[in-house]
Amino acid sequence: MYRAPVDEIAFTLKHVTGFAADLDAGRFGDLSEDLVDAIIGEAGRFAAEEIAPLAKVGDEKGAVLKDGTVTTPPGWADLYRRWCEGGWNGLAAPEEFGGQGLPTLLSVAAIEMWNSGSMAFAIGPTLTVGAIEALEKHATPELQKTYLEKLVSGEWMGTMNLTEPQAGSDLNALKARAEPVGDGTYRIFGQKIFITYGEHDFTDNIVHLVLARLPDAPAGTKGISLFLVPKFFVNDDGSLGARNDVFCASMEHKLGIHASPTCTMIYGDGKFGDTPGAVGWLIGEENRGLACMFTMMNNARLAVGMQGVGIAEAATQKAIAYAQERRQGRAAGAPKDGGMSPIVEHPDIKRTLLTMKAETQMARAITYACAYAIDRARLDEGEEATAWQARADILTPMAKAFSTDVGVEVASLGLQVHGGMGYVEETGAAALYRDARIAPIYEGTNGIQAIDLVMRKLPLQGGEAVVRLIGELRVDQKSVAEASGLGATGAKLANALDDLGAATDFMAGALAEGRVNEALAGATPYLRLFSLVIGVAFNARAVAGNENPGHAALVRFMAENLLGETGALRQRVTEGAGSLDAAADALLSA
Amino acid sequence: MYRAPVDEIAFTLKHVTGFAADLDAGRFGDLSEDLVDAIIGEAGRFAAEEIAPLAKVGDEKGAVLKDGTVTTPPGWADLYRRWCEGGWNGLAAPEEFGGQGLPTLLSVAAIEMWNSGSMAFAIGPTLTVGAIEALEKHATPELQKTYLEKLVSGEWMGTMNLTEPQAGSDLNALKARAEPVGDGTYRIFGQKIFITYGEHDFTDNIVHLVLARLPDAPAGTKGISLFLVPKFFVNDDGSLGARNDVFCASMEHKLGIHASPTCTMIYGDGKFGDTPGAVGWLIGEENRGLACMFTMMNNARLAVGMQGVGIAEAATQKAIAYAQERRQGRAAGAPKDGGMSPIVEHPDIKRTLLTMKAETQMARAITYACAYAIDRARLDEGEEATAWQARADILTPMAKAFSTDVGVEVASLGLQVHGGMGYVEETGAAALYRDARIAPIYEGTNGIQAIDLVMRKLPLQGGEAVVRLIGELRVDQKSVAEASGLGATGAKLANALDDLGAATDFMAGALAEGRVNEALAGATPYLRLFSLVIGVAFNARAVAGNENPGHAALVRFMAENLLGETGALRQRVTEGAGSLDAAADALLSA
Repeated sequence: MYRAPVDEIAFTLKHVTGFAADLDAGRFGDLSEDLVDAIIGEAGRFAAEEIAPLAKVGDEKGAVLKDGTVTTPPGWADLYRRWCEGGWNGLAAPEEFGGQGLPTLLSVAAIEMWNSGSMAFAIGPTLTVGAIEALEKHATPELQKTYLEKLVSGEWMGTMNLTEPQAGSDLNALKARAEPVGDGTYRIFGQKIFITYGEHDFTDNIVHLVLARLPDAPAGTKGISLFLVPKFFVNDDGSLGARNDVFCASMEHKLGIHASPTCTMIYGDGKFGDTPGAVGWLIGEENRGLACMFTMMNNARLAVGMQGVGIAEAATQKAIAYAQERRQGRAAGAPKDGGMSPIVEHPDIKRTLLTMKAETQMARAITYACAYAIDRARLDEGEEATAWQARADILTPMAKAFSTDVGVEVASLGLQVHGGMGYVEETGAAALYRDARIAPIYEGTNGIQAIDLVMRKLPLQGGEAVVRLIGELRVDQKSVAEASGLGATGAKLANALDDLGAATDFMAGALAEGRVNEALAGATPYLRLFSLVIGVAFNARAVAGNENPGHAALVRFMAENLLGETGALRQRVTEGAGSLDAAADALLSA
Repeated sequence: MYRAPVDEIAFTLKHVTGFAADLDAGRFGDLSEDLVDAIIGEAGRFAAEEIAPLAKVGDEKGAVLKDGTVTTPPGWADLYRRWCEGGWNGLAAPEEFGGQGLPTLLSVAAIEMWNSGSMAFAIGPTLTVGAIEALEKHATPELQKTYLEKLVSGEWMGTMNLTEPQAGSDLNALKARAEPVGDGTYRIFGQKIFITYGEHDFTDNIVHLVLARLPDAPAGTKGISLFLVPKFFVNDDGSLGARNDVFCASMEHKLGIHASPTCTMIYGDGKFGDTPGAVGWLIGEENRGLACMFTMMNNARLAVGMQGVGIAEAATQKAIAYAQERRQGRAAGAPKDGGMSPIVEHPDIKRTLLTMKAETQMARAITYACAYAIDRARLDEGEEATAWQARADILTPMAKAFSTDVGVEVASLGLQVHGGMGYVEETGAAALYRDARIAPIYEGTNGIQAIDLVMRKLPLQGGEAVVRLIGELRVDQKSVAEASGLGATGAKLANALDDLGAATDFMAGALAEGRVNEALAGATPYLRLFSLVIGVAFNARAVAGNENPGHAALVRFMAENLLGETGALRQRVTEGAGSLDAAADALLSA
């Protein structure tokens, strides 16, 4: 059973990022280290004692759609109610609307643990958080007044409606229509697919944020607007009125996260109400919907990264526990009369489990550093704030893609450690392997994240933002090289930084010279290379000055066993594109 | 829908191994290239037109256990009947018992395609083939006469009964008992788990091969004997008699291969017959059962390797087809007014699909080379035969482990290419991801394979067998370096061979000096390193003298994009063990 890794999380939170020093300096107001520890402890308790026990029934029963109504698995609606009562929904939400206004960093740590408990549960509130942000930043005071407090308390939930059958990664192809009525409202028509928690029984009302096109909108993404479409209208006194013209037409039969309803939503089919069209209210300006949506999406990407970390942590714990129990063979050096050894004593299993722990911790470091940058961008001012925002922008695609790839890899290794039992559904290892697989896909596939890193993030501040980050990593490397007990970490990190430097130079050159396809061909290995270096350097940084032998030993394992991959990745980036087109022409054409 | 890749298979068969020259030289008797092509074509037709269409219903309905009876999915028993009628069950079986006596190489090519059609179907007959081999090599003429012909025709199927709850990778812990009756038969008692096709409705009778201990047998694996236990007794006239005391008590609820019943078998519970105990007949000598079982197991390992290749091929085809159809975004360089491009035109997707194709083809080369070595060991004599047997022994763990890891990796990449649709079960990409995951586990986990390679195969012939293989790879490298159109393949292969040499030297040193745990710690990365080099070198070998631009382009992609990993793997082998124990002590102890 999942046990919240509060010590590892607190250590990462405080020493991988600059958070501990900030707390001392009062940069986060009156937030104290004690309070931070208490919140992590309590969020972890909720994840381990309340959420995790319902994961299995969630997977087995799943959400069920019948006559347009979605019923979540037994106990889930009640779990959600307790979760809201605990105040967890509003952890990082603005105090003005009833939230607790805590740092993103703290909320991200909590999200990790909730996802370890059950990814299918944690994904729902993530979308509400996104809706809260979009409304807070872009909606009219009237809309804020009507919706924000109930979204923050969790009394209502929010959704994100982007995807249509022909418009997934490419939102240019969006077709949903919005027709202005003249009274400030719009009528929305269209079909949206893959809508997470599009319909459910957790809350009385659901607040859909929907991308659609106005009648004379420009083509492409510059003609997309964002609308708020409630499932039920809200009366002036806050009570619920009539049903709006939106409904869930079908639900996907998915590989995993069975308890999370993935809905096809139909807007404006005339099923409800007298006049055709779902009634919507504009959020932000006309034709500027994508900018609003990106507010939600960036944080959603980090939140999906936390799913990767959460699944990886859960899978690692499960595999370690099994390996400590399960006895097979006698380990070399074990006493001859001691019978079979726990498989955790076999070197090949040790390597597997440590790889799982190391990758999980690397992903944790990257995601927490990203959250910290988001907080600093909000708290700081001027150039400092700009620099932190650029840092958050650079780290976001890595936080999303690296962590979710790690989630899949680690869940797969964890299943393997269980042997035949891992393939049997009752152990739960297989469920993690199934759940994990969606995270590299949604909120922008990991390929899209890599392209985002190369095409949008490398050029930030004329390239200076990335140069500054790599410079910091070099400082980390120097401090590691001088530290003891880390074996060859300093030397390995120096090599890896050379690989990162060479790959970055290649990318910069390719972009400058218009060799776009070469840059795109190397995007995925580049993101992985960058992430490995950051994952090790950020974790290594925390060793200096903070006694933590376990962490130090793990960092050494990362450096001596996992970091060597950067050489191959650099080759793939700088030399790999040459063979791509010839092979593609010969082998991939229809 | 799956299309049998007969051209790629024929090319690999003929030119990666030495098969084409052998056919010309008559080494395989009157087997002609035309006949080989015809058999591949027909096996592929059966896989694509008969097996593949039933994969989905097999996954969705699965095998069902009720009152001790297992019903396979609709259409499956009839599929099996047609498969037997086609003579496929006896493809490589001895002609003396009605088989076709064709080379293992040809049978392996067919097995690949059947697994592409449906792994859950193909796994069943694989076990019958193992039973045929064990009986042919070790059983008395009486047992052979009673059982072999019907196993070869497929009228009856065979099973392998090794695993017990406490005895998985470690057969020392086996507890099933066999008591001699005095009339030449034995009474078998015990529970066996994870028995593939342990019970089903394909055939009237099922022939279980069961490992058990005689009273007074030595402890450990030297006290294990192999028994034949039929589900129904066979009368002297070949008709079926009474039911033997064995039954299926339960069936596992698995992640994938749902149509393949995975049974818990109970022997000697007194459910059937008057006298307690399932009646069994000894195969081979008392206490020498493991040797007999290894006859089955080695070929079963290669057969499982083919599952990896088969799944990888199916996943690759499915992803390429989807990528050719699905349009999103406009590829750099595509006409501005052409609308969205098929995603196959995006460099990141190209890289993904080519990685899938390349890994599949590397695994195919290794498995086919292994099958070829098995054939040569059988056909040749004296030292030649010994050398080929050693080659087969070295290649078997790589054929099993590398190919099945590739199966999982490629199925995962294939799902990713489908985006959100990949996570929805209807596309079938998710089913491949689920099915693929068992292959790295059964027939000896991939960790066990790696240990086998290092501890048992490296020392073969005093280490000479491996030295000879690496020497051949160096010859391949030289011929590649002189070939044109392969880009940097020669140079990359030279580097990779240096890595393999260094890692092999390290392993030899560690074994010679008794540093067993260091050797074991590096076993998994060593197996991958060795496999990558062989996978590229063997495929590169086929380019020289055989015009095949597609294959040449793919080899170049392998070398320039995938082979760089050997550097990291070498580091893991030679420098990775140092950090293992400290980290394990700190982080993995109970």
